[in-house]
Amino acid sequence: MLARDLAPDRLATDPRTLAAHATDRSGARSDGSPLAVVHARRTEDVTVTLRHAHALGVPVVPRGAGTGLSGGATAGEGVLVLDLSGMNRVLELSADDQLAVVEPGVITAELDRAAGAHGLRYAPDPASAAISTIGGNIATNAGGLRCAKYGVTRDSVLGLEAVLADGTVIRTGRRTVKGVTGYDLTALLTGSEGTLAVITSATLRLRPVPVATATLAAYFPSFEAAAEASYAIGRAGVEPALAELVDGPVLHAIDPELRERGAALLVVQCDGAGAAVEAEVVARLLTPLATTVEVTDDPAEAESLLAARRLALPALERLGRPLIEDIAVPRSRLAEAARSIRAISERHGVPIFTIAHAADGNLHPIIVVDPDPDLDRLPDAAWEAAGEIFALALRLGGTLTGEHGVGVLKRQWVAEELGPAAHALQRRLKEAFDPRGILNPGKSL
Amino acid sequence: MLARDLAPDRLATDPRTLAAHATDRSGARSDGSPLAVVHARRTEDVTVTLRHAHALGVPVVPRGAGTGLSGGATAGEGVLVLDLSGMNRVLELSADDQLAVVEPGVITAELDRAAGAHGLRYAPDPASAAISTIGGNIATNAGGLRCAKYGVTRDSVLGLEAVLADGTVIRTGRRTVKGVTGYDLTALLTGSEGTLAVITSATLRLRPVPVATATLAAYFPSFEAAAEASYAIGRAGVEPALAELVDGPVLHAIDPELRERGAALLVVQCDGAGAAVEAEVVARLLTPLATTVEVTDDPAEAESLLAARRLALPALERLGRPLIEDIAVPRSRLAEAARSIRAISERHGVPIFTIAHAADGNLHPIIVVDPDPDLDRLPDAAWEAAGEIFALALRLGGTLTGEHGVGVLKRQWVAEELGPAAHALQRRLKEAFDPRGILNPGKSL
Ligand SMILES: Cc1cc2nc3c(=O)[nH]c(=O)nc-3n(C[C@H](O)[C@H](O)[C@H](O)COP(=O)(O)OP(=O)(O)OC[C@H]3O[C@@H](n4cnc5c(N)ncnc54)[C@H](O)[C@@H]3O)c2cc1C
Ligand SMILES: Cc1cc2nc3c(=O)[nH]c(=O)nc-3n(C[C@H](O)[C@H](O)[C@H](O)COP(=O)(O)OP(=O)(O)OC[C@H]3O[C@@H](n4cnc5c(N)ncnc54)[C@H](O)[C@@H]3O)c2cc1C
Repeated sequence: MLARDLAPDRLATDPRTLAAHATDRSGARSDGSPLAVVHARRTEDVTVTLRHAHALGVPVVPRGAGTGLSGGATAGEGVLVLDLSGMNRVLELSADDQLAVVEPGVITAELDRAAGAHGLRYAPDPASAAISTIGGNIATNAGGLRCAKYGVTRDSVLGLEAVLADGTVIRTGRRTVKGVTGYDLTALLTGSEGTLAVITSATLRLRPVPVATATLAAYFPSFEAAAEASYAIGRAGVEPALAELVDGPVLHAIDPELRERGAALLVVQCDGAGAAVEAEVVARLLTPLATTVEVTDDPAEAESLLAARRLALPALERLGRPLIEDIAVPRSRLAEAARSIRAISERHGVPIFTIAHAADGNLHPIIVVDPDPDLDRLPDAAWEAAGEIFALALRLGGTLTGEHGVGVLKRQWVAEELGPAAHALQRRLKEAFDPRGILNPGKSL
Repeated sequence: MLARDLAPDRLATDPRTLAAHATDRSGARSDGSPLAVVHARRTEDVTVTLRHAHALGVPVVPRGAGTGLSGGATAGEGVLVLDLSGMNRVLELSADDQLAVVEPGVITAELDRAAGAHGLRYAPDPASAAISTIGGNIATNAGGLRCAKYGVTRDSVLGLEAVLADGTVIRTGRRTVKGVTGYDLTALLTGSEGTLAVITSATLRLRPVPVATATLAAYFPSFEAAAEASYAIGRAGVEPALAELVDGPVLHAIDPELRERGAALLVVQCDGAGAAVEAEVVARLLTPLATTVEVTDDPAEAESLLAARRLALPALERLGRPLIEDIAVPRSRLAEAARSIRAISERHGVPIFTIAHAADGNLHPIIVVDPDPDLDRLPDAAWEAAGEIFALALRLGGTLTGEHGVGVLKRQWVAEELGPAAHALQRRLKEAFDPRGILNPGKSL
């Protein structure tokens, strides 16, 4: 029995703990309540848990901080939750090799802070960095604001320790920046949403903190004008560190006074030794299209320019229950995507608010509705609008999910994006990792 | 029969064609002669070939330009060579989305040139760019000089079309920079050395040509001093676009006069809007350690500073037959690796010349010997030295191959680097792609 092989403080079955581990920040729920929660503190807790679960065919849901927005960590009837948040030590931080080795439960922002003591940083910065775990970030291949220049989580993962469904420990990748021995299991596990293996340690690339940063905030008469401005930056060959676009309805939700400044806000950050020069180029490009352009190289002022972007989600949560979508399109289709989303909103009579990582073509259309208080579920119109948004993404040559993952919420559209042959192949890969199908069943694929 | 289903100009069985397709630039050879060469011109040629080969259990070796240095494209008795070099069209080049869609036989430098017409470039620049194919680059996850800043081939591949062993066509990835639907098959195929699928088209990321470039060349009294200088650059938070290190024996082989200037040469390039500022920082760091430091922002002069690096291989080929190794180590171990390589050279009495991509910790120790003219193989001492170099790489926390791939030459050390559990898992993945084992058998794993 599992209880015999784990230290007593590792296993919880009280209703409060079970309820707290049944859902994530998407609000999605599975029927019933999980069997138990294992609070792992070291890799052996994970191997023991998986060995037992594998022998008995019990489904296991790996869980970081539960901040996921696609229902990847939801756990229902008969499921064992494997909570990794207690494995939260930074095992090594090498300034010379610009890397860190961490357990999966380390909070993203804490790693960044630890790196900061050596003039380094952990580049991926999901807006949830203060609350999400590195393990969850890797399992979802999380994006963030800075990935415009520094790439997504995958681009910062050098190697992993992971436990397969049957309890076998594997190591993937290495401590070097480059390496091509064998297939790239590190990339395969990154973004696999807990369905292939449980990540128990990660070797992560750190990068120097940029010597300078310049931030611009510009308001535009329309979302389309702001999108045009972001294309102009790309065409001029400038690679900004971030380029965040906030639409009029979001501005209004944050503060009606902001909405009066324009129908869309674009915040751009350039960094590195050429930050000031690049910011000047960007300012010149934005000025003819914008209503107002502000530039600063002062960090506090930059933070206040970015504040509007950061306040978006809390502001929308005050209006109702947000269903946060996450499509990505080729970046020259940003304006077209936004236009179509407005049409979808009107057709279904549901308000849709849009923020976007403009340089990546990654849009977050946020459907805000009041959930039917009796049903504890969103109204059909919201799901229909969501379905049309996914179809739109695919039609423009894009994807269902740029960074949040498929989880349970987007599963019904996955086969269409992948196509039957790649979908079948992915299922064979899943079998090669997890022949009994115990790892996070019903998620992702 | 295959001959019936392919256009007549696609199939060759004449001895000259067979001999030309039996080996690659590593000089490695398998016993016997391949059955036939299929000159693919379109995806259907690939599907037809694989369908037949799969039904009959005939091994297939995909081949680009045959410039590989690890024997990945060698083909012996009873093997069908599938030559992709004739599928060489750039299908699309979108300046707005900064991407290109190309067939696998496109020559690397030609894509870069085509992108240049739009102010863009294809960042990965293996020293073989003028002769290697994009398909071969992807299949080996090729590195190059600029990957210090812009990453390896994998970092520029957005999506693929590929044909599985049984002739099924799959599409992986997408046209967007970000996307997390399903497992990352694009990364899995990148670096798989033709053992998982045949790549028939690739969607590649292009990047703006940097607005400015500054190049420095510094000579040092020892390799260790040059390595120290490269660490100092990293510690100062500068990310150079390239940092190439050439040791004294290589300098001597290129031109004895160069060797008189120092015992090691470090060429560093900074690019982007901050290039000049960064180059100034680098110059300040190098000066106390170096014998001489030259800086230039003139492209022609930069090319002449880089010339020594580019002349290394041809110069060594004049001295004998080079066996080019390709280890990577955590970059703070560069000096230690070079010291140990010198000891290995002395112990086995074989000359070893070293060049390195310093910022990546990727060393190319090049063993130069005269092959035994009777045996057409390298002397045992060369292989023993190579074996010790691999052991050294693993001991320092590094890898057997930073960018050239495992091919046939490094196969015997692969299991040790991967460990038994990851090795077994990789074999299961291979089976999920290619259950009959017809794709490039005996390579990579
Ligand atoms: C306010 C807010 C802002 C957000 N902003 C962003 C953003 O900018 N970018 C972005 O990408 N996401 C964002 N998210 C979504 C979320 O924070 C990310 O998906 C994050 O990566 C989840 O981390 P977690 O630790 O909470 O994982 P969880 O939610 O606990 O789990 C997520 C998935 O990972 C799996 N998993 C977790 N840990 C492991 C492990 N150790 N091994 C194997 N599988 C594991 C789970 O099974 C699940 O499928 C945001 C969320 C919120 C609430
Ligand atoms: C002078 C010189 C300098 C070099 N410099 C570098 C360098 O800086 N960095 C570096 O990484 N390499 C370098 N190389 C090695 C070599 O050029 C690279 O490995 C290159 O990527 C091979 O490309 P190719 O088209 O010649 O492939 P090939 O040699 O034909 O094949 C290489 C491998 O890829 C597979 N393959 C080829 N095409 C496909 C396809 N379409 N689908 C599936 N599998 C395929 C083959 O089966 C084989 O396993 C150098 C080589 C030379 C001769």
